[in-house]
Amino acid sequence: MDITYHPIGIIHSPFHDIAAMPIQPSGALGIRGEVEIYPQFAAGLQDLDGFSHVILLYHFHRVQEAKLRVVPFMDSEPRGIFATRAPKRPNPLGMSVVRLLAVEGARLRIENVDVLDGTPLLDLKPYVPAFVHATDVRVGWLERVQAQVRTHRSDRRFQ
Amino acid sequence: MDITYHPIGIIHSPFHDIAAMPIQPSGALGIRGEVEIYPQFAAGLQDLDGFSHVILLYHFHRVQEAKLRVVPFMDSEPRGIFATRAPKRPNPLGMSVVRLLAVEGARLRIENVDVLDGTPLLDLKPYVPAFVHATDVRVGWLERVQAQVRTHRSDRRFQ
Repeated sequence: MDITYHPIGIIHSPFHDIAAMPIQPSGALGIRGEVEIYPQFAAGLQDLDGFSHVILLYHFHRVQEAKLRVVPFMDSEPRGIFATRAPKRPNPLGMSVVRLLAVEGARLRIENVDVLDGTPLLDLKPYVPAFVHATDVRVGWLERVQAQVRTHRSDRRFQ
Repeated sequence: MDITYHPIGIIHSPFHDIAAMPIQPSGALGIRGEVEIYPQFAAGLQDLDGFSHVILLYHFHRVQEAKLRVVPFMDSEPRGIFATRAPKRPNPLGMSVVRLLAVEGARLRIENVDVLDGTPLLDLKPYVPAFVHATDVRVGWLERVQAQVRTHRSDRRFQ
């Protein structure tokens, strides 16, 4: 079964190289970027300006192959790909929650951007904490290292 | 630019009809389902059992067409599709955070399921609150109605 999508826009960021990047939005505080929505989709942005945060779903366009086990940026042991956010996924879908600073026509000014410049955007959703019910959260192998996400940077391992 | 994905598995739930469904996981508390990961991807599940919640990214397979403005389930006014979670999106990608009860081989037992039975799964990510930095959250048109998500049910408007 083939599922074919087409980008609705493109993400612009200060990151032109996959190394030395923040690895999650919480490691990218204050870093600004823009989302350029293609004109044919601009009408879908109505009402978005009432939201402070948006979920970007995008295609990791620089990924060449999938791996089922990877050593994540914040670890030294191989982990199952679905227990990580690493990009070499069977379907290389990325997800980031960013702050929405402004909607200017079909351009979104955003902050806390951990995305490579030129990344194709597939979907944009409002971030609504009340839609998630998550109590007693456990984060497995990340428990020990998750605080590092604020300072840890990417390298070339997923090139 | 075509981006082609292939399902990594299938989501099983008690919902066989798009009407009268919960519209978000927080409206589906205690409702159980299963994710069947296809055998060729099972190795990617290693270490997932340490996580209490997972993010399901799936294809709204019953959607026939996109709309840029929709009247959402919890509202009576048209809104831009990207300011809603409605399924008739240009790329019909769905996202739900569910509780992970157990990993049994290539089957995940899950809870708080708001997904139609038979939905193709595209990706599975660990839910890690520390990866999101979201302060002073505003939720636009949903501010007034978001509490209804616990009881409101779907209808056939997005068929």
